[in-house]
Amino acid sequence: MDRERFEKQIMFLKEIDRVKTIFRQTRLLDDSRYENDAEHGWHLAVMAMTLAEYSNAENLDLWKVIRMILLHDIVEIDAGDILLYDSQNRGDLKKERETRCAERIFGLLPDDQRDAYRALWDEFEARETPESKFAAALDRFEPIIQNVSTDGHAWRKHGISRRQVEDANRHIGDGSDDLWEYVRELIEDSDRKGYYSG
Amino acid sequence: MDRERFEKQIMFLKEIDRVKTIFRQTRLLDDSRYENDAEHGWHLAVMAMTLAEYSNAENLDLWKVIRMILLHDIVEIDAGDILLYDSQNRGDLKKERETRCAERIFGLLPDDQRDAYRALWDEFEARETPESKFAAALDRFEPIIQNVSTDGHAWRKHGISRRQVEDANRHIGDGSDDLWEYVRELIEDSDRKGYYSG
Repeated sequence: MDRERFEKQIMFLKEIDRVKTIFRQTRLLDDSRYENDAEHGWHLAVMAMTLAEYSNAENLDLWKVIRMILLHDIVEIDAGDILLYDSQNRGDLKKERETRCAERIFGLLPDDQRDAYRALWDEFEARETPESKFAAALDRFEPIIQNVSTDGHAWRKHGISRRQVEDANRHIGDGSDDLWEYVRELIEDSDRKGYYSG
Repeated sequence: MDRERFEKQIMFLKEIDRVKTIFRQTRLLDDSRYENDAEHGWHLAVMAMTLAEYSNAENLDLWKVIRMILLHDIVEIDAGDILLYDSQNRGDLKKERETRCAERIFGLLPDDQRDAYRALWDEFEARETPESKFAAALDRFEPIIQNVSTDGHAWRKHGISRRQVEDANRHIGDGSDDLWEYVRELIEDSDRKGYYSG
């Protein structure tokens, strides 16, 4: 065992414990509290396993989807979670803060793993490959399920319109037409229930 | 899309949200609160990705390790988390409760996925294959790191002896000699710090 290499890996694995302290805008399905990024990562990974058949891709590399999902929110340790509909803070500033965090935290790892994890995160962010499109679709799908299950909690709290929800989530269809069709039904139903500001 | 099949998958994915409400005996590394099973699943999965090179297996199927890790604690939704050192409740009773829970929750899925997930859980529990041995090693490794980082919290709270810790964690070596060697150092150091009851 290369002890120096191992110590770097352990340092990284300890540092990412803080993902458990980054709270999101959406709540557990029983509405008892907000969800954190680590729980979100676990749930998304099981969603990916279970719903892979609905990906638009012919030959989805599911193992790559899962690796992207497991790593994608680590960059929020320094940057925090920003509301999907907070357009003021979701542009360049978010990207810049997350990139700095990716450099710091993946930089704790041995070089080969640092580069591999960074490449997975960059691929996820770019949303150009079938795997990243499907991972991104699930990343939006879970909050929709959560909002629908908690009387539109985050939508109502922040006064979000139906149009905003549709625009911010439309790219679900890039990863899965089936999931986007289902989400459109949920949005229609949520509109009838008055969860949107207009 | 087979809508009936899809609805079953969604039902399962909603039900397992409760994994986020099952709290463990060990605490976050910043000692701020106890960890729950969903966070534990996420952290273990990233540990598996990062530490796979230390597995004793020649050709580890890491993707299978990850699937086992992601699913292994779902059975605690009905059964709860039982202290590793609670020998009275960790035998047949635990197994029986978890098996009932596995039948109920995996039973929400379409038959093919129910059988596949159940097989992964059974394989994890049996600890006979290289993948399940490595997954089980990590399942013990994380709490050791947590206890060491929080002044031996769970060990001290429950008056656990060094011998108990060694006996309950020795099978880490079945999955990874390297990790077990490192854990033995941590146990030695914890003993010097007085974290054990004897």
